[in-house]
Amino acid sequence: MLDKNDQTTTVADLKKLVDEFVRERDWSQFHSPKNLAMSLAIEAAELMEHFQWIEVADSREVANHPEKLAAAAEEIADVLSYTLAIANSMGVDLSSTIHAKMVKNARKYPAEEYQGRHGGE
Amino acid sequence: MLDKNDQTTTVADLKKLVDEFVRERDWSQFHSPKNLAMSLAIEAAELMEHFQWIEVADSREVANHPEKLAAAAEEIADVLSYTLAIANSMGVDLSSTIHAKMVKNARKYPAEEYQGRHGGE
Amino acid sequence: MLDKNDQTTTVADLKKLVDEFVRERDWSQFHSPKNLAMSLAIEAAELMEHFQWIEVADSREVANHPEKLAAAAEEIADVLSYTLAIANSMGVDLSSTIHAKMVKNARKYPAEEYQGRHGGE
Amino acid sequence: MLDKNDQTTTVADLKKLVDEFVRERDWSQFHSPKNLAMSLAIEAAELMEHFQWIEVADSREVANHPEKLAAAAEEIADVLSYTLAIANSMGVDLSSTIHAKMVKNARKYPAEEYQGRHGGE
Repeated sequence: MLDKNDQTTTVADLKKLVDEFVRERDWSQFHSPKNLAMSLAIEAAELMEHFQWIEVADSREVANHPEKLAAAAEEIADVLSYTLAIANSMGVDLSSTIHAKMVKNARKYPAEEYQGRHGGE
Repeated sequence: MLDKNDQTTTVADLKKLVDEFVRERDWSQFHSPKNLAMSLAIEAAELMEHFQWIEVADSREVANHPEKLAAAAEEIADVLSYTLAIANSMGVDLSSTIHAKMVKNARKYPAEEYQGRHGGE
Repeated sequence: MLDKNDQTTTVADLKKLVDEFVRERDWSQFHSPKNLAMSLAIEAAELMEHFQWIEVADSREVANHPEKLAAAAEEIADVLSYTLAIANSMGVDLSSTIHAKMVKNARKYPAEEYQGRHGGE
Repeated sequence: MLDKNDQTTTVADLKKLVDEFVRERDWSQFHSPKNLAMSLAIEAAELMEHFQWIEVADSREVANHPEKLAAAAEEIADVLSYTLAIANSMGVDLSSTIHAKMVKNARKYPAEEYQGRHGGE
């Protein structure tokens, strides 16, 4: 596992990891986009639980507590697994899609205009 | 953009893409884990909207409609962006974390026992 | 408890029930709208877990299994608790707000036009 | 509408309001528990958007801005509508369920022990 890291791992490597897990259990029958979108929202909620009652500033401190960090990181991995699973089930190339979306976002939120100003609401 | 695809793109490449977008706008002040976990859940909900009222089987057909697929893929990219952003903000290596989680999942859901049987509930 | 039912209980009765629970624990310090909105989304996700992997039609059968129904109903109660808590924290009258929203919805989705046709997406 | 308020409105009144809206459009075919749980999570996410990027303390100020309050209150009403819809679709009496859950919560979080200490995580 030590040699698996974000510098050396492609998105396709991770998609394959998830795909094999699903195929070994014959779970593709459950992995419809509808069910996977629900699963993603459920895992995102489990991640939120780690920050539910704390201040925004305190949530930045979680990364300094190894145990709390590991627990939160595991939820992030669950979110990522379902993101890869839904991409697999719909045949989406994530890298080209996110690049295209970032170009669109850059047009919507020009860097000068949104300097230090968030985009939402 | 044509040369950006999941075969050739590392997770670190995508993390950098998101990190640069955030830094160009000085948005790291908003990118606390608490806010990013909320953002992830919000984007997951926007993805669910594409499948909200349809049957499970029909959700598998969405990938065959180029326009509907593109719209759903864009939401998946938004989910991935925030997943990368929270990994950036907490210093999480996604590839090693997801590999470790998959080992744990494989122990929890042995392939023979969970053959064609979903894990939840 | 037998005499508490939806026919005889006002929305204000339920708001008071939740408010007393919160005040007895001095939890209003945690009950900011931001935290309560997160809590609502977390409880909604827990409710979704009961229907995550099953077909739409099978989700209608859950109400026929007393144990499964009780478990789902408890999650619905949790969602309602946080809905009442956020209404309490922001001073929202739910009954007048929902009536006003229904008038707006009826204009957006005229009954003839949306006969058997869902509104979303 | 002026005479509809939380003091005088029973939970059954609101359930009926939602039920009539659904029946006038023949939407019960879409109102399966699975779809309604998704809808609840989607509306909870829309409510979160109002507090996504702001500090916890600032979220308490939203109630002092009539326009922002009205917008958030409308999302709360949407959450409540789907809570009532799923209770209708599963035949759940909300008032007795929430009372029973509060008794259970009071046992789980004794007032003395959890004085000023939140329950989660």
